[in-house]
Amino acid sequence: MDERLDRQVRFTVELDKLKQVLRRNTLGDGSRYENSAEHSWHLAVMAAVLAEHANHPIDLGRVIQMVLVHDIVEIDAGDTFAYDAVGLLDQVARETRAADRIFALLPADQTETFRGLWEEFDARETEDAKFAVALDRFQPLLQNTESGGGSWRSHAVTLEMVRDRCEAIAEGSAALGAYVETLIANAVARGMIGGPTVPEP
Amino acid sequence: MDERLDRQVRFTVELDKLKQVLRRNTLGDGSRYENSAEHSWHLAVMAAVLAEHANHPIDLGRVIQMVLVHDIVEIDAGDTFAYDAVGLLDQVARETRAADRIFALLPADQTETFRGLWEEFDARETEDAKFAVALDRFQPLLQNTESGGGSWRSHAVTLEMVRDRCEAIAEGSAALGAYVETLIANAVARGMIGGPTVPEP
Repeated sequence: MDERLDRQVRFTVELDKLKQVLRRNTLGDGSRYENSAEHSWHLAVMAAVLAEHANHPIDLGRVIQMVLVHDIVEIDAGDTFAYDAVGLLDQVARETRAADRIFALLPADQTETFRGLWEEFDARETEDAKFAVALDRFQPLLQNTESGGGSWRSHAVTLEMVRDRCEAIAEGSAALGAYVETLIANAVARGMIGGPTVPEP
Repeated sequence: MDERLDRQVRFTVELDKLKQVLRRNTLGDGSRYENSAEHSWHLAVMAAVLAEHANHPIDLGRVIQMVLVHDIVEIDAGDTFAYDAVGLLDQVARETRAADRIFALLPADQTETFRGLWEEFDARETEDAKFAVALDRFQPLLQNTESGGGSWRSHAVTLEMVRDRCEAIAEGSAALGAYVETLIANAVARGMIGGPTVPEP
């Protein structure tokens, strides 16, 4: 059997575990928590549909591959909630260890390529990464507005925390940033942000 | 609010429903059924990692977008099990109605682009589509071998049925086709195909 192909296939088998990593936001209908694999799919389709709204020209193929792999370190490191101050403290160390193990399952040239995309996403410096990060902030906001408040209400997230988290959206796409302002205003008006805390699903 | 952007966002909100469409195969550990959104993510990463094994040069960006949207008609039409002879009879009619509704949520130019990718996938004529279809056949086979037989054992699928279903893999990638022959031989040796039927998870 072709050893290179076998390594590549074993890597994709390992990725199956991302379907079991649960995020803090729910599906749009609030029926269950979303997992990181389906979240990554959602971002990838969003990238294809919304690419024209990036602030600067992007390489769509790279952006899509970036969002496809941006969360796979969570297989070992777990999902760190955006508003979890304690979890955020050691997030980098946990995710770096995870990246060391998971990307190394691939042949060396591909370890470099895909780990590079993950590092680029995290660094948020290139135009491709800024747009990818904008989508990663936009999608859960959309899930929360669809589900009537979602993780904002179950975790008592304030308007200031949401706004702070959303700054990165306009950095990748001014059009999406403006869209989000309207979504946030509506969410505040409907008591989804800063309203009473509700139990988790 | 930008009407074009709003249509694009509403389309991506609609796509959230694909996370609730369950397939017949389980996750690799057999713990639950896989949904079509996370399945599509898995195919997209596989396309990026395995692209070098396509029989002919492919446009990887197109292949990835094709697998990202290849199942979204299931939001209305449901997943049709590959070995469900009755369901397959009206699958085309059901999925065409679904495509008419779902892709039309997008601005007209994007309706054409994304519906075109879905139609191209289904037609299995271009090199891009042949490779995308090969991945779509390969991934559930991998899930079944990982879970000890999965939907083969719960649905009494025979070796002949599996081989018939796998022909499309070699059409897109001879290397993957050869890899699959080994997987199938191992699965038969371990009683996963043609062995006693087991209950569904």
